[in-house]
Amino acid sequence: MENFDQNLVIGIDVGGQTTKCGIVDTRGTVVSQTVIRTDNHDTVEPYIAELAEALKKLIAEADAEGKIRGIGVGAPNANYYTGDIENAVNLSWGRSGAIHFAELLKEAMGGIPVTLTNDANAAAMGEMTYGAARGMKNFIMITLGTGVGSGIVVNGEMVYGHDGFAGELGHTTLVRNNGRLCNCGKNGCLEAYCSAIGIARTAREWLDMTDQPSLLRRLDKITAKDIYEAAKEGDEIALKLFDYTGTMLGMAFADFIEFSSPEAIVLFGGMAKSKEFLTEPIEKAMNANVLPLWRGKVKLVYSSLKESDAAILGASALAW
Amino acid sequence: MENFDQNLVIGIDVGGQTTKCGIVDTRGTVVSQTVIRTDNHDTVEPYIAELAEALKKLIAEADAEGKIRGIGVGAPNANYYTGDIENAVNLSWGRSGAIHFAELLKEAMGGIPVTLTNDANAAAMGEMTYGAARGMKNFIMITLGTGVGSGIVVNGEMVYGHDGFAGELGHTTLVRNNGRLCNCGKNGCLEAYCSAIGIARTAREWLDMTDQPSLLRRLDKITAKDIYEAAKEGDEIALKLFDYTGTMLGMAFADFIEFSSPEAIVLFGGMAKSKEFLTEPIEKAMNANVLPLWRGKVKLVYSSLKESDAAILGASALAW
Repeated sequence: MENFDQNLVIGIDVGGQTTKCGIVDTRGTVVSQTVIRTDNHDTVEPYIAELAEALKKLIAEADAEGKIRGIGVGAPNANYYTGDIENAVNLSWGRSGAIHFAELLKEAMGGIPVTLTNDANAAAMGEMTYGAARGMKNFIMITLGTGVGSGIVVNGEMVYGHDGFAGELGHTTLVRNNGRLCNCGKNGCLEAYCSAIGIARTAREWLDMTDQPSLLRRLDKITAKDIYEAAKEGDEIALKLFDYTGTMLGMAFADFIEFSSPEAIVLFGGMAKSKEFLTEPIEKAMNANVLPLWRGKVKLVYSSLKESDAAILGASALAW
Repeated sequence: MENFDQNLVIGIDVGGQTTKCGIVDTRGTVVSQTVIRTDNHDTVEPYIAELAEALKKLIAEADAEGKIRGIGVGAPNANYYTGDIENAVNLSWGRSGAIHFAELLKEAMGGIPVTLTNDANAAAMGEMTYGAARGMKNFIMITLGTGVGSGIVVNGEMVYGHDGFAGELGHTTLVRNNGRLCNCGKNGCLEAYCSAIGIARTAREWLDMTDQPSLLRRLDKITAKDIYEAAKEGDEIALKLFDYTGTMLGMAFADFIEFSSPEAIVLFGGMAKSKEFLTEPIEKAMNANVLPLWRGKVKLVYSSLKESDAAILGASALAW
């Protein structure tokens, strides 16, 4: 254990079902990791107790006592300013009001500083610290998973805004007339079209509307992964679905560029793995819809972090 | 002249026709001002010579030799990072390529530091330093004039982006299908609908489409000011025009909020004077289109700077 750094941090990714924790060194290596259930409890106190126990065990096993500089947490609806998780409908213990997560965990961990932010901001921090955005001072991270999240970096710093909740680009309005209902209650949000769930909704709509043959017709329940597999087989509807979804993303990205003029837009998450089908329509629509001065100038890049480590790394980057 | 501060700056607002210059003290008082033509020259050198001469005269008359700490310039297509004005179609001497404005003026002024930014960013700096946004760390300035400009402040700092041109919110796409052609060459931009020219275009379209009586029918050429005057007389079409334009602005503002979560959106410029007709539709559409977490929470405020001084004050704020 002697090749461990003296300086270590802990990264924690709080998901609806599991909580992934890892000890990370200054080079961005996850030297040790563990996982606990997030959804075993209805209140936060027993969950925090279980989490702290798991972390202490992890620290002891890695011989890292006294070397942990801080703990970074990525969680849904997390507020960087307050350290709270607020009204997180996907967390069994986080549904109502503000959970003082940072304060509770710090106390349970004997005073180690805890910093909190939402998942997409954590992903942006991870890319900036260890990944595809290293050295960039202005970029926008877009996470394409079951939802569409975003983390915005301006002049080397995360944009948290007045209240700590800045960067909800998945809920900018893409379709103003008869837009799809989104989870958030609004209509026409980017997320309703371009998340993994959004592309699956589009697939079902299109299959219902036409008789065109497609590998997707065999399936009871269509996922974004199924569409990717079908596209790889040359399925025409699947290919058109990526073209449509990429075009929607590109149109939205053009507006994001007009806001903060980023060096790059960085894509991360399950849907981003379909980059062979998404890159061309995104770039085409982005350049067609942006002011001439940015045409062809803003890079589209994909996360370079190992997927299994990315969430832990992102959260850990907060702790430095 | 003994009550002048020892610390003074110069603010310069470069418009297409005139260039307004003023000496400003630390309290935000324009202690002395002058104006020259912008459009007397086809090349920048004689313009800079004339500008420097006017400034030196202004300094001498105000007994301010040796007291000027810096010069701030607001100009179209100005780049804060480079100090250049790039491809400014509205400036007779600025149409092609990059004019090294800051460098040329600094040289002509014996080495006084010169800082440059675009008009809307200068307006944002002015509001933050002396006006309605004093004490705010996160706000978005929207200038409603012949165009729609924007200046974005995040965490107390202007957002310039990767290349210095961030904040072109007037060219985010508001209408995606059959949107109006905008000056920039794109279709459906916010500016094409909500600038002074945009509302006048809407007026002409509506008057052509219906027979509804309106005070505006008497006019050969309709301006935003005419529409305001008609609305004050209770003219129904004029009132509906503000309702429509305000609704468009509010829908766009909702997306801006989802980006940077500002404390306030600050409105400035000729159109902002119609606030008695704009406030209600803007706030209604903004709150209907934003995520629930921001509903009713983001302030809509109007510039508090004296109009005749605002452009000079904004530019001068850059120089501190």
